[in-house]
Amino acid sequence: MSGSSYLLERAWVDGAVRDDVLVEIQDGRFTSVTPGGQSSTSSAEASLVDVQAPRPTGGTARLPGLTIPGLANCHSHAFHRALRGRTQRERGTFWTWREQMYAVAGRLDPDTYFALARATYLEMAAAGITTVGEFHYLHHQPDGTPYDDPNAMGHALVAAAAEAGIRIALLDTCYLSGGFGRPVETAQLRYSDGSAAAWASRTAQLRGSGAPDHVVHGSAIHSVRAVPRDEIPTVVAAAEGRPLHVHLSEQVAENDACVATYGVTPTQLLHDAGALGPLTTAVHATHLTGADIFHLGSTRTRACFCPTTERDLGDGIGPSRALHHAGSPLTLGSDSHAVIDLFEEMRATELDERLATQQRGHWTAAELLGAATAHDSLGFDDAGAIAVGRRADLVTIDTSTPSTAGTGADENTAVFAATAADVVHVVVDGRAVFAADDREQIGLELAAAIGKVHDG
Amino acid sequence: MSGSSYLLERAWVDGAVRDDVLVEIQDGRFTSVTPGGQSSTSSAEASLVDVQAPRPTGGTARLPGLTIPGLANCHSHAFHRALRGRTQRERGTFWTWREQMYAVAGRLDPDTYFALARATYLEMAAAGITTVGEFHYLHHQPDGTPYDDPNAMGHALVAAAAEAGIRIALLDTCYLSGGFGRPVETAQLRYSDGSAAAWASRTAQLRGSGAPDHVVHGSAIHSVRAVPRDEIPTVVAAAEGRPLHVHLSEQVAENDACVATYGVTPTQLLHDAGALGPLTTAVHATHLTGADIFHLGSTRTRACFCPTTERDLGDGIGPSRALHHAGSPLTLGSDSHAVIDLFEEMRATELDERLATQQRGHWTAAELLGAATAHDSLGFDDAGAIAVGRRADLVTIDTSTPSTAGTGADENTAVFAATAADVVHVVVDGRAVFAADDREQIGLELAAAIGKVHDG
Repeated sequence: MSGSSYLLERAWVDGAVRDDVLVEIQDGRFTSVTPGGQSSTSSAEASLVDVQAPRPTGGTARLPGLTIPGLANCHSHAFHRALRGRTQRERGTFWTWREQMYAVAGRLDPDTYFALARATYLEMAAAGITTVGEFHYLHHQPDGTPYDDPNAMGHALVAAAAEAGIRIALLDTCYLSGGFGRPVETAQLRYSDGSAAAWASRTAQLRGSGAPDHVVHGSAIHSVRAVPRDEIPTVVAAAEGRPLHVHLSEQVAENDACVATYGVTPTQLLHDAGALGPLTTAVHATHLTGADIFHLGSTRTRACFCPTTERDLGDGIGPSRALHHAGSPLTLGSDSHAVIDLFEEMRATELDERLATQQRGHWTAAELLGAATAHDSLGFDDAGAIAVGRRADLVTIDTSTPSTAGTGADENTAVFAATAADVVHVVVDGRAVFAADDREQIGLELAAAIGKVHDG
Repeated sequence: MSGSSYLLERAWVDGAVRDDVLVEIQDGRFTSVTPGGQSSTSSAEASLVDVQAPRPTGGTARLPGLTIPGLANCHSHAFHRALRGRTQRERGTFWTWREQMYAVAGRLDPDTYFALARATYLEMAAAGITTVGEFHYLHHQPDGTPYDDPNAMGHALVAAAAEAGIRIALLDTCYLSGGFGRPVETAQLRYSDGSAAAWASRTAQLRGSGAPDHVVHGSAIHSVRAVPRDEIPTVVAAAEGRPLHVHLSEQVAENDACVATYGVTPTQLLHDAGALGPLTTAVHATHLTGADIFHLGSTRTRACFCPTTERDLGDGIGPSRALHHAGSPLTLGSDSHAVIDLFEEMRATELDERLATQQRGHWTAAELLGAATAHDSLGFDDAGAIAVGRRADLVTIDTSTPSTAGTGADENTAVFAATAADVVHVVVDGRAVFAADDREQIGLELAAAIGKVHDG
């Protein structure tokens, strides 16, 4: 990959917004990052090319606006994008929503899932997301029979991310039971490998030939209701120092059933099984006891909040700040893709905490921006900052739109004013993957892919 | 005003989405509304002009996408737009936020407020808002002395709405005390007329010469803390069959102080003073007793929810559905303009109720769309529907953006997928006031007007 350089009008570098940051990129990494770079380098004004050239091939492209590091979407079920605006029309609970989600899950095959995931990941790229953590459990044919390639669905997701130009942590998910002590049924047949050992064997195949530069292979325990207690250590062992994610305590009913079955909370169950730790991410972590928060924090387990989904599904408001105080770093995800907008997830984390406490100011904008750009829970420890040696991601926000104008063009603009629609330019690993003009085409691809899912 | 016509690809007409709706407009009103109009009228294909012509002067303009009636922003403090991305950086409470808001209030004069309100109302037009309810209390000079024209600030707001092309209900607000039994101080000096009688006299002057077609003159009681009990009947009498709005029970502290002072809740106080009824709107209505809900519902008092502000200020989640069941129609407002996006307010009403109850499906999309387009609480009973005889407002949403593609292009798209940035064309009273290309200029005007407020 050839080198390139950008002059960023304003950029989030080393914990503050700096002006006129010149960045140079070689082989997908930043080789220099120079605030005030316009005057201090040899890149004369004359060599600047206009930002309207979204794929610069030479010279220095100037990016007006506020540029932040790439956003990490740490919890995604790509196929849920087909449900936006559709399941919302129903009443009921999380559990009736799940029936609708299962109906879509039952209709996908590797080709239609590739197209849907590709379009969904393009929407993510357009929202400034440079890495997706795909919590992937749609493994097999509708009756549970493996595809000829038992990892066909996983390969489709990896290929979709490559075509969209973003990185992926494929969190291959172990799902064995349809509830505490219940077999899998209906759409769940597609999810199950039968045993944790069989899951481990399949995922070892998936990782067998190594991973391209844009892929991390990670693991997931779907939930304590979908993986029996005795199977959990097998998953933990197979995760082998790589990311391990798990849905945790999203619903009170799940907590109650766990306590009724095992006599402990889901967090305690995972703790006892050795599943917690700094490589583990607890997704949702909504309904926790004080002891749960202690265990998650003291093991440095990460907490991935997905507030727009948690609103949509009526999950409730989790204790994001208490987890932070206890030692659990925050990450964010768009999960069901009712919205794909990590700016909204950032502010929703703070605003929902305000609703719960009737106090303001739990999270600073800088902390929330840190949470949204933290890539280490997805295994990309070398991304998430505009700094020499890091993967060269640049997400540029237009600071002159009706949403953002007059808001200070700093981290508060990013967190409290911007929306995904304000993103005008995105670079991933040194490659320009999105410019504002691409939105129209992305909309067409989404409509086509989702149309196929619903209309066959 | 000359006539015009539009062919709407899809439109919300008479409680459902219809295809190919031909609307004809004369003198700012719909004269015909014909679903399936493309084939059943004499407007041949050949006479259609492209939607890219945002200000058609002849022929029929085709508007692709989903067109809904104009949105009514029933609670606005225009000058708060200057605080977006600025107060959010602070910790504290509603009350510390108020100190920052007062600092901006102290710096405005009729010229700077005109420019700020004009830009803010342009942002509203770009978000599909066709009428603003401006809860206006910034009346006098910084030391409390009236301007030479004591209604100079109100006139500035009316002129700003006219230039932005939207209608305004100027809710001239009575504000007499800085708290229960406390005089006004600092920025509050600008708000007070000294007595309800003096307020009534000034507002009578304001209304004296009648109102242009885009203006309704209404009244407001700032709150039970800012208008002593004995003064309330004077305001109610002066409201004379026109809209009367009031901030109600936004904060627990206000409720507690009201009970401590008068022995009754704010709702009971207003009820006893004769201030409730179908022309009254209770803004926020967050912390209510069962008796409060009964009184508001049985008097058919409207409830204006502002959920994005109520999140931002940590107010809490009000009982929107219980009020509806009791008889209080819902309206919506963007209030502090942390966000100007009534699509977000619509879904936030439902989603926050889900957070509070852990159940889904309290409000249907159709009900929420009805709430957001209801204009009668602002005195424009003849707006808010695409129907013959009504004011000709058309708000067109692009249904092919990354946010909206594949979501069904119906009322669920509007409520659960669209954002203000998806609005591509807006007609108010038959005049095209916004097309997507205008966003850039609106951003510039916001930046200039807000820059003047902060930098002098």
